Amino acid sequence: MIVILKPGADERLVQDIVTQIEDTGLKAHLSRGEFRTVIGVVGEEGKVDKEHLLSIAGVEQVLPIMKPYKLASREFHKENTTVHIPCPGGGTVSVGGGHLAAIAGPCACEDETMVHTIAREIKAAGAAILRGGAYKPRTSPYSFQGHGEEALKWLRDAGNENQMPIITEVMDTRHVQTVEQYTDIFQIGARNMQNFNLLFEVGRTRKPVVLKRGMAASIQEWLMSAEYILSQGNRQVILCERGIKTFETALRYTLDLSAVPVVKSNSHLPVIVDPSHASGVREFVPALAYAAIAAGADGIMVEVHDNPSQAMCDGPQALLPETFKTMMRDLRAIAGVFDRTFSRAVSTAPAAPAVAMGAGAI
Amino acid sequence: MIVILKPGADERLVQDIVTQIEDTGLKAHLSRGEFRTVIGVVGEEGKVDKEHLLSIAGVEQVLPIMKPYKLASREFHKENTTVHIPCPGGGTVSVGGGHLAAIAGPCACEDETMVHTIAREIKAAGAAILRGGAYKPRTSPYSFQGHGEEALKWLRDAGNENQMPIITEVMDTRHVQTVEQYTDIFQIGARNMQNFNLLFEVGRTRKPVVLKRGMAASIQEWLMSAEYILSQGNRQVILCERGIKTFETALRYTLDLSAVPVVKSNSHLPVIVDPSHASGVREFVPALAYAAIAAGADGIMVEVHDNPSQAMCDGPQALLPETFKTMMRDLRAIAGVFDRTFSRAVSTAPAAPAVAMGAGAI
Amino acid sequence: MIVILKPGADERLVQDIVTQIEDTGLKAHLSRGEFRTVIGVVGEEGKVDKEHLLSIAGVEQVLPIMKPYKLASREFHKENTTVHIPCPGGGTVSVGGGHLAAIAGPCACEDETMVHTIAREIKAAGAAILRGGAYKPRTSPYSFQGHGEEALKWLRDAGNENQMPIITEVMDTRHVQTVEQYTDIFQIGARNMQNFNLLFEVGRTRKPVVLKRGMAASIQEWLMSAEYILSQGNRQVILCERGIKTFETALRYTLDLSAVPVVKSNSHLPVIVDPSHASGVREFVPALAYAAIAAGADGIMVEVHDNPSQAMCDGPQALLPETFKTMMRDLRAIAGVFDRTFSRAVSTAPAAPAVAMGAGAI
Amino acid sequence: MIVILKPGADERLVQDIVTQIEDTGLKAHLSRGEFRTVIGVVGEEGKVDKEHLLSIAGVEQVLPIMKPYKLASREFHKENTTVHIPCPGGGTVSVGGGHLAAIAGPCACEDETMVHTIAREIKAAGAAILRGGAYKPRTSPYSFQGHGEEALKWLRDAGNENQMPIITEVMDTRHVQTVEQYTDIFQIGARNMQNFNLLFEVGRTRKPVVLKRGMAASIQEWLMSAEYILSQGNRQVILCERGIKTFETALRYTLDLSAVPVVKSNSHLPVIVDPSHASGVREFVPALAYAAIAAGADGIMVEVHDNPSQAMCDGPQALLPETFKTMMRDLRAIAGVFDRTFSRAVSTAPAAPAVAMGAGAI
Repeated sequence: MIVILKPGADERLVQDIVTQIEDTGLKAHLSRGEFRTVIGVVGEEGKVDKEHLLSIAGVEQVLPIMKPYKLASREFHKENTTVHIPCPGGGTVSVGGGHLAAIAGPCACEDETMVHTIAREIKAAGAAILRGGAYKPRTSPYSFQGHGEEALKWLRDAGNENQMPIITEVMDTRHVQTVEQYTDIFQIGARNMQNFNLLFEVGRTRKPVVLKRGMAASIQEWLMSAEYILSQGNRQVILCERGIKTFETALRYTLDLSAVPVVKSNSHLPVIVDPSHASGVREFVPALAYAAIAAGADGIMVEVHDNPSQAMCDGPQALLPETFKTMMRDLRAIAGVFDRTFSRAVSTAPAAPAVAMGAGAI
Repeated sequence: MIVILKPGADERLVQDIVTQIEDTGLKAHLSRGEFRTVIGVVGEEGKVDKEHLLSIAGVEQVLPIMKPYKLASREFHKENTTVHIPCPGGGTVSVGGGHLAAIAGPCACEDETMVHTIAREIKAAGAAILRGGAYKPRTSPYSFQGHGEEALKWLRDAGNENQMPIITEVMDTRHVQTVEQYTDIFQIGARNMQNFNLLFEVGRTRKPVVLKRGMAASIQEWLMSAEYILSQGNRQVILCERGIKTFETALRYTLDLSAVPVVKSNSHLPVIVDPSHASGVREFVPALAYAAIAAGADGIMVEVHDNPSQAMCDGPQALLPETFKTMMRDLRAIAGVFDRTFSRAVSTAPAAPAVAMGAGAI
Repeated sequence: MIVILKPGADERLVQDIVTQIEDTGLKAHLSRGEFRTVIGVVGEEGKVDKEHLLSIAGVEQVLPIMKPYKLASREFHKENTTVHIPCPGGGTVSVGGGHLAAIAGPCACEDETMVHTIAREIKAAGAAILRGGAYKPRTSPYSFQGHGEEALKWLRDAGNENQMPIITEVMDTRHVQTVEQYTDIFQIGARNMQNFNLLFEVGRTRKPVVLKRGMAASIQEWLMSAEYILSQGNRQVILCERGIKTFETALRYTLDLSAVPVVKSNSHLPVIVDPSHASGVREFVPALAYAAIAAGADGIMVEVHDNPSQAMCDGPQALLPETFKTMMRDLRAIAGVFDRTFSRAVSTAPAAPAVAMGAGAI
Repeated sequence: MIVILKPGADERLVQDIVTQIEDTGLKAHLSRGEFRTVIGVVGEEGKVDKEHLLSIAGVEQVLPIMKPYKLASREFHKENTTVHIPCPGGGTVSVGGGHLAAIAGPCACEDETMVHTIAREIKAAGAAILRGGAYKPRTSPYSFQGHGEEALKWLRDAGNENQMPIITEVMDTRHVQTVEQYTDIFQIGARNMQNFNLLFEVGRTRKPVVLKRGMAASIQEWLMSAEYILSQGNRQVILCERGIKTFETALRYTLDLSAVPVVKSNSHLPVIVDPSHASGVREFVPALAYAAIAAGADGIMVEVHDNPSQAMCDGPQALLPETFKTMMRDLRAIAGVFDRTFSRAVSTAPAAPAVAMGAGAI
């Protein structure tokens, strides 16, 4: 940490600040410039608080040198983290470290049949993981709020039948245990990125967590939220960029694809991209998915629906299964340019119907 | 709702969309322009979903005419809402409808003594309501997270002793019952403005709720979150502007004071302003508080600490008690320009020490 | 400037960087921390370029200590600057240092009669300076672009007749000389805040300049643009906050009133506020004007039109003369709370009609 | 245009508004809903002004149906525009319609030698167009402002020698004629996107214009600025996304790659991407360039410098020539996935040295 004093700080004030710093067990290193006196604080930054130093009269700025997150940082953990998700029926799906994942499915699990139908279609088109909402965060209290635990069952069954791990959102600390019984991966939505108690709770489970970026969260705040989960011993965190709020209103959010290489430079965690929620418009999803993989993302998460105009939520952004299939073909080609490949659930035993359907497609 | 078709929509498509609209019990009113066909949807907008219409092939735009919130809207409820908060020892503090409230106190309740000391000081300076954090939402998992239920007790005692209602933040659906036992007002923080289950839970209590605006929330989204609480039968919602995220980094957030008259134009709910969290810097708090009251806000919420450099959180933004006192004097003068007055807890029985201290000050 | 090296920088690299710094005539002050090596650069920051240091391999961050502007900074010039504008007919209007100015008039000078009518009305209501557009920056090439030099004549005559200094926008380096012949104050619009050649040109004149903040400009960038003007010897710069672009779309822009105290803390220049362009909606202009003066602004600039529904531009935001009059009364009351007063053009000779009209009003 | 009246508008007001609309030669089509009366305005939208309608008492909202730009819109011009730039020595470089262009070169033309050296290197690596700054917009008046006309000569010579068209920025209406004598393409920088007189001036030339997006410009405002140029008869406009201002400060700007497909959906003009200015950091340029081409951009513009730590501006973002070469190889592979190809200057006569150098590289 570097402490910059206001101009004209006198000797007594400087000594007083130095004493306060050294009282915490750190060393203070003084530089007197022509215009400012600067104190370098040497030692572990965590020991002394930025806000505390800022509160001292005579201090103008406090500049941290270290990142405020540790477990999430690449300095702490140099190698890319690969998250391995056990697959129903055997095998695993890997995300990170060169393994890409395509996560797809409906916004909400509307009924049992549609979940199964879409699951089969996306599996055939090359998706590795099935998504579907049981608890839905909706802007309006009058909108459909999801089918809850019943939907979790449908999703679990569809995952099992198609040998795909499943992911679903948890919104409430009271639901973590229930959701854990069904899901393979927890999803923390953008609106809950700083629901810190919820982060602690999923951090105490041992299931992977996809942590979406809040629409007003800086990359640093996002990594701090990952740190909440990691700090509880759960090291299987996958970050998911899904658009931020800016002045541009052409689409719902502004997808920040720079976040992909910036996260990779600062953290070892895998990062995927959700172009469906970012754009809110079906027509623009493929272009943004291509861009995400080209930018180095470890996967994509998209919404697919076989009858979008009847969807109970987010119909305008859902891809039709055939568009998803074409898109997957081009995504694989882009991944190939960088010698990366999309994961498929590798089953130890042959799974007749899924293989039969998928064979030509992938 | 107005449905605008893409150019070149043929007769069959137009009829198809009209049929889909009329199937929901609404009437479709067709206008054929030179360049576009437009369908006016007549009836209750809630019956048909914007997203549903947007998902129909051939539809270019869907423009809602009605606001998506109802109970929060001024159309529904023309008169300003005044929230009355019972005061320990008798009487009430009113917020809204010409009654202004000054809410003050420490960021976090650090120990019993400091809570009592600050409570006495802010009471003497003219605050009507005591604030203090027991559960603290912190960006870092390694920061102080609040003293929990113990802090609630300190705050309750300090409120009682000084005959001030208290307000404290609730962050977790699991804590609503506990917090309800102690507090007079729930605070929903900016990070939880779209924690919809938490909104439902406080909506089911009958205690007033201060709902802070999310740092990326549009005014409409904020009012939709108020609607969540109102929809459960709790009509005592006070909105609180506390700054939004913008590109400007001179201060922590950009305080959006336009939100005050805009909310008042669209809603009957009282709206207060928190200049402490918006700026993050003590020096700028008074100017922003003056501006808030001049803009028409129904009150302010500020942090006060008697030893900011030792504060466990947000020290740099806490006012010293004497600055708060001077600020209150000027705030009362500005309110006077508009014939509005700051509420004081009106006690039915004389409360010796508090009155003695406060007498000369207010 | 402080140079922070990447972790693991070896001795040779450190020495190499030190040498590069000392070659520019500055002193390098080394601090070796547990995790990072930090080099404090002692001397005049301007001598070595931040970007240059950032380009050196092994450098992680470069943190400037000094502000990048000098003439605009309060460190350089401690006292508030007061800008004195000569008034036609004698006397001056002052802005800054406790003197507030109300600048009012139509968006565009539409014809000679309307300019004169509005000038008389705003003078009577307490405005000190007359504004009006001759060259209009319009988003669309098909919109009315202003009446050019002819409009400048109308404005000059109306100013003379009502003994008010005038202000008008200049958009093109080729127009500076022409505009200078007519106007008392140059206005640089938000879209031209970083039209650096235009800043240089008005900096070479000796007429005061109102410099509007760009809608995406940080406060620091704004002060850097002021520095462009000041660097050419023109010290009469008045800053004008007029709203920034954010995600909130309820109004045209988000008025950043925090900018007022932040500018005053960092600079000695006067700062005024334009609530008309910020909101774009007449109904919200008075509340924002009150807030601006309460926040410490040195004046306001508003649009007034006596027939807004026929205005050639920005009709929805123009105040009616009677609203402007009421608003001025309340603005004076708020200014009074802080012992500040609105400037009036003080004429040395009696000016019968204006005084007669204004007498009761002010 | 759709005019929505405030609730409770009486018959007289409705008729009055209808009359005002029909007086302009348009037809008003009335819809009375349960809650609101809506008037559809049928005819050419340009005839009646949105602001004019908004200024009428009783009007709540005015919703345009048509886009405010015409010549730039895809409705007006269905086919993709391809811009053909004559190449010194013969042939053309094409941008748009499946032809991609790589534009590269130094930020500023620092001296004659460096311009020639870099030109040779980027040509060999596959660039089609040479960029270089002669007039530099700098945030600080004390920074290097460019070598002016002399630099234009260096750039012209380097373009001729390497058979590459050149592009350079023009910042001032007074410089348009001079720059036109040297350059093949005008660049309008982000800060001048709404310098409307400058847009008119380059619109009156017949040289292609690269129009960068302003850092606070919506896509619609950007297309309106293109309309300024097109309206003067110059149809050779290439749009360039270069990052917008958001709350995220990890990089200089937030590159908005969604703008690429959104522009292509709304406009026929080619759109390229500048990842150098968007990120400001060399390390992140390739990932963003890959993403741009994958998203469908018609080209990229990047800064290359052979000695970035000595660059006179923007050193930290300049690629080394060898990185540029590797990046071009991967960009060609991604373009290939979509059957698009990078343009090369096709000379009618053999150009010995360039071919010799480039042979192995491209």
